Amino acid sequence: MKFNYPDGRQFNSPSSPASSKLSADTSAKKKLIFGDRGMTLEEEINESNKYYRSHDVAVIYKKPTPIQIVKVDYPKRSRAVIKEAYFVQASTTDYNGVYQGYYVDFEAKETKHKNTFPLKNFHQHQIDHLKACQKQGGICFVIIKYVALKRYFIMPADNLFEYWDGQRHDGAKSIQLQQIIDCSIEISPNYNPTLPYINAVQQLIESGREKK
Amino acid sequence: MKFNYPDGRQFNSPSSPASSKLSADTSAKKKLIFGDRGMTLEEEINESNKYYRSHDVAVIYKKPTPIQIVKVDYPKRSRAVIKEAYFVQASTTDYNGVYQGYYVDFEAKETKHKNTFPLKNFHQHQIDHLKACQKQGGICFVIIKYVALKRYFIMPADNLFEYWDGQRHDGAKSIQLQQIIDCSIEISPNYNPTLPYINAVQQLIESGREKK
Repeated sequence: MKFNYPDGRQFNSPSSPASSKLSADTSAKKKLIFGDRGMTLEEEINESNKYYRSHDVAVIYKKPTPIQIVKVDYPKRSRAVIKEAYFVQASTTDYNGVYQGYYVDFEAKETKHKNTFPLKNFHQHQIDHLKACQKQGGICFVIIKYVALKRYFIMPADNLFEYWDGQRHDGAKSIQLQQIIDCSIEISPNYNPTLPYINAVQQLIESGREKK
Repeated sequence: MKFNYPDGRQFNSPSSPASSKLSADTSAKKKLIFGDRGMTLEEEINESNKYYRSHDVAVIYKKPTPIQIVKVDYPKRSRAVIKEAYFVQASTTDYNGVYQGYYVDFEAKETKHKNTFPLKNFHQHQIDHLKACQKQGGICFVIIKYVALKRYFIMPADNLFEYWDGQRHDGAKSIQLQQIIDCSIEISPNYNPTLPYINAVQQLIESGREKK
């Protein structure tokens, strides 16, 4: 998957192999070089964000885990130590930032399932946050990784809302893989960046422009 | 200070007093009602962000403090307790989010000085982050609170960069209050939101459009 940026840069070209589309018959090579280096989805996204920042493509970060700090020690001649703290539920999604003037906001989820994606992977506050950001004109989506299938999907937030809100009507507690394939942009792991998801963001922006 | 949003909403009108401009002769009332309720700048911004989110004006959050977690206990029948952790330096600014399709990114700083603002309040990584976000088309600025003067300024990041980079040339280690007045948008604390800084963001966007 290649992209021409508005300023003429071709995104994948500097560091991507001759063909960035990985087919089944190169799976041995794929295992050796790309993506599947035992990294979690979070690690893959963090590495990609680092690449995107260092190449002035986008400025996107994972937010720190929110912690409620109860007790801090300040030992002499050494740095402060947090001695008691608790995890608190985040109000937002994990990732946000800016790409070519657009506000980008997303959540990342891995699943070990092969045919479905359980909706319980999401929390109401994440849906609410994505809805609020989308209302403000942000580019909102979810990155879903099927660990066993080694497949990655960028699902637009609109489609997620549909399934989430649909639970009340049809009682479906999960999204089928085929439904995800139908509404998402599939991306393949690469060398640099590890997960070229900004290509899909560019597509989402362009399809949004067409709708208008 | 009042604003008409593109969709016709008038931002301050629902909850602001008849005159939202506070003059010196109403300072007794001001102490009672507005802003100066012993809140830190961070609290004032967090309260304002809450108001903005609940009124669909903007979705902006303070990022959690980044922590490096070393040891976690999982006691039976109760939630996980972090027993050893350390503060780590943030790579970004403290606040970001989305307002009417624009990516907004800023840092907030209080000072007890009355005539100057020491540049050592900033760190290189914050400047670098603001520069990177601005390059991507984000709306970047600093909110400066003069605690003793009870004055609040929205200084565009461009002006901050000028003073920051200028240190190397003229050696000036601080910005004079008059320089801040000259390049910033002053805002007055209010009731709801506590600190109506989005008005200034709207001005920054409009002045950016004029430049183009």
